[in-house]
Amino acid sequence: MKAIKKRMKFSPPLVIAGSFASLIFLGTLLLKTPFATTHAISWTDALFVATSATTVTGLSVFDPGTTLTTFGEILLLILIQFGGIGLMTFAVAVLMLFGKKVGFQNRIYLQESFNQQSVGGMIKLVKLIFIFVFSIEAVATLLLALHWMPRFGLGHGLYLALFHVVSAFNNAGFSLFPDNLMQFAHDPIVNLVLSGLFILGGLGFTVVMDLHYKKSFREWSLHTKIMIVSTIVVNVISILTVFLLEYANPATLGAMSLPEKLMASYFQGVTPRTAGFNTINYGDMHNSTLLFTMLLMFIGAGSASTASGIKLTTFIIVLLTTIAFLKGRTEPEVFGRSIKIETVIRSLAITTISLLLVIFFIFLLTVSEKLSFLPLAFEVVSAFGTVGLSMGVTNQISDLGEVFLSIVMFVGRIGPLTLFFLLMKVKKVNYRYPYEQVHTG
Amino acid sequence: MKAIKKRMKFSPPLVIAGSFASLIFLGTLLLKTPFATTHAISWTDALFVATSATTVTGLSVFDPGTTLTTFGEILLLILIQFGGIGLMTFAVAVLMLFGKKVGFQNRIYLQESFNQQSVGGMIKLVKLIFIFVFSIEAVATLLLALHWMPRFGLGHGLYLALFHVVSAFNNAGFSLFPDNLMQFAHDPIVNLVLSGLFILGGLGFTVVMDLHYKKSFREWSLHTKIMIVSTIVVNVISILTVFLLEYANPATLGAMSLPEKLMASYFQGVTPRTAGFNTINYGDMHNSTLLFTMLLMFIGAGSASTASGIKLTTFIIVLLTTIAFLKGRTEPEVFGRSIKIETVIRSLAITTISLLLVIFFIFLLTVSEKLSFLPLAFEVVSAFGTVGLSMGVTNQISDLGEVFLSIVMFVGRIGPLTLFFLLMKVKKVNYRYPYEQVHTG
Ligand SMILES: [K+]
Ligand SMILES: [K+]
Repeated sequence: MKAIKKRMKFSPPLVIAGSFASLIFLGTLLLKTPFATTHAISWTDALFVATSATTVTGLSVFDPGTTLTTFGEILLLILIQFGGIGLMTFAVAVLMLFGKKVGFQNRIYLQESFNQQSVGGMIKLVKLIFIFVFSIEAVATLLLALHWMPRFGLGHGLYLALFHVVSAFNNAGFSLFPDNLMQFAHDPIVNLVLSGLFILGGLGFTVVMDLHYKKSFREWSLHTKIMIVSTIVVNVISILTVFLLEYANPATLGAMSLPEKLMASYFQGVTPRTAGFNTINYGDMHNSTLLFTMLLMFIGAGSASTASGIKLTTFIIVLLTTIAFLKGRTEPEVFGRSIKIETVIRSLAITTISLLLVIFFIFLLTVSEKLSFLPLAFEVVSAFGTVGLSMGVTNQISDLGEVFLSIVMFVGRIGPLTLFFLLMKVKKVNYRYPYEQVHTG
Repeated sequence: MKAIKKRMKFSPPLVIAGSFASLIFLGTLLLKTPFATTHAISWTDALFVATSATTVTGLSVFDPGTTLTTFGEILLLILIQFGGIGLMTFAVAVLMLFGKKVGFQNRIYLQESFNQQSVGGMIKLVKLIFIFVFSIEAVATLLLALHWMPRFGLGHGLYLALFHVVSAFNNAGFSLFPDNLMQFAHDPIVNLVLSGLFILGGLGFTVVMDLHYKKSFREWSLHTKIMIVSTIVVNVISILTVFLLEYANPATLGAMSLPEKLMASYFQGVTPRTAGFNTINYGDMHNSTLLFTMLLMFIGAGSASTASGIKLTTFIIVLLTTIAFLKGRTEPEVFGRSIKIETVIRSLAITTISLLLVIFFIFLLTVSEKLSFLPLAFEVVSAFGTVGLSMGVTNQISDLGEVFLSIVMFVGRIGPLTLFFLLMKVKKVNYRYPYEQVHTG
């Protein structure tokens, strides 16, 4: 395995980062052409939106529905779909279509992208992903199209349904409506179809496969167990928190009936960990709700999914390790299983790098922008988690700030560890120094 | 050792928390009497300032110089001195003065307070601390008194010198001047004497003892090496950062000459990790400087010192572990020594609990207060690090907010781990579940 890795021309982190970067580069060029937009946009705006689509973030410096032509919208959709499933998966699919054998190198790249432990099942996994993605998207598009056709007409209703289904399933959060989904705040079909899609997309393919093939909790892998239980717990807490904090806010839930309040709380409770759609205006929310939302955006959803952030499992492992320490242990345990110290240290490293990165870019934006602190911090965390929620300041960001946020979206999507493995010359060492005590805390 | 701990009536965390709580309780009662203040203050104000003094924070809801009587000021000073050195140290000193033997139980309490590994050297350590504290304070008071007597008169000059020396050495940051130390922004003697005191106090007694007895770097303990090197590095970075960010800000450094700019940057660079004095107004600083200052306040200074926060060594170990992970290891190494995984996990737990605690209390204050986000977040981090810097909103906090901040100062001072060991019934277990992999990041 080690020997094989050495023989590869490009390291997996380089291929992952390189494929996203190429897609962003291509997207920027195409978005800048006069075919893509109704009026000329700047290079930084093109870069920003191409990055936002490829990294499935959903932040935008202009209103996609009015600024983009149909060509521009379809381009956006393609970037979202390629970025969401991952370029490598597509490359393998194309190779398979042409009947070519998938080389060992490509399998290792795929393995790295999907965080898998063995190379063997990769091709089968990719096939499954494709069948899964396109059948879900087809069914959901049909469902939403039937709902929207009476209002928007046959062709446009189908088109809108397709766009929003792809955007939701890939957790992009882009919408062709000028107020995102705010006009559908009281529409149960739109709420349930789109949230169902982005929750499923945010679990990660390995979890979905586990759910599909193994029907009982006991059979699931530890990873799936943690993902399902913590997704439910975190979502319930989030929905309740939004409901309680915004209950009396006249600009958000205040004027709604109780069922409408509940539906909007549900949607705003589940959207921050990666989807980024909104049915109420984040600029009107209380600072307490916004802070809580930032925490959710930083955590994110599942590994090997369309989500970014540190990932839900990473957060849970950090929490479990803290509890383990209070019990006098170093390795956390859950559902009758122990988690290896290597995984704990990996989680610590991901969390530390992510935190420092987010703080550093908030810092840069407080220098480059004249906006107040919270909207900027919110924007950076949203970009890092490739969430796409905003307090409404995205179009007020300076060119330099747009470049900063594009970097944050890119790093958030490829993962801060991928970035570091790319930049650092890692030299494995086999010696160990003698131990000495250091006082902490 | 384990058997002895079991036989003790009160656990060390309970004694540490209990002694600080009693001192705060007593301080609140005395501050509320008409002898302590020139006009009546509320119970929450008395609680807040008593907590702030005992935890050596320095936040105040009123101007101490005009609101407190001389009795009130001396009371404040006593709370600072007791809180700074730690009540247990005092108790042992009193026992020694009366010629009583110090029992094994008390030694264990002391050991816990000072984070020592062995019980043996504790009594010697306490004696040394006392000699060290009072001789330093005496010399510094004399120095500052000579400087201030021409301006404030013999008696008052000496009194002011004593107050500010005790406040500085214990890193309390309380001042009897209405603008803290802003009028001394250009006074090198005041700057150097007070910052010298709070840097020394913030290193921690064990480090100072190491410096005193072992003259070469090679002889120092790993803890001392890390403390000294990282204190120098962090201070240099901080000073430069403040200098560059505020250089052109007309409300802070803008109007100053270069030497004045440097002196003010030096002071504001070294004060945030625990001291909390200020020679320029934090309310006028750029958001970038304030964010950077919050990071410093969260980190804090040395273990077993007058500082709070997660502590500098904890932060360094988290960073070193992250670097170690990128090199494919679990245990960090520095200065030719490895650090045990138990210390790493302890650092992870301290950082996680501290972060969640700070976020939770910022959240509570965004609910209880109508102030904007950054000043509230700054206030909470300042309270947690028992720093005492403020963007100037302390006197606008509601009664409920004052209670929240008092809790944060208390928990910050005793340490979040002490709190958890106090609240949790820890049951040590000796089995281990089988390992299973979880995907992270
Ligand atoms: K998104
Ligand atoms: K202080």
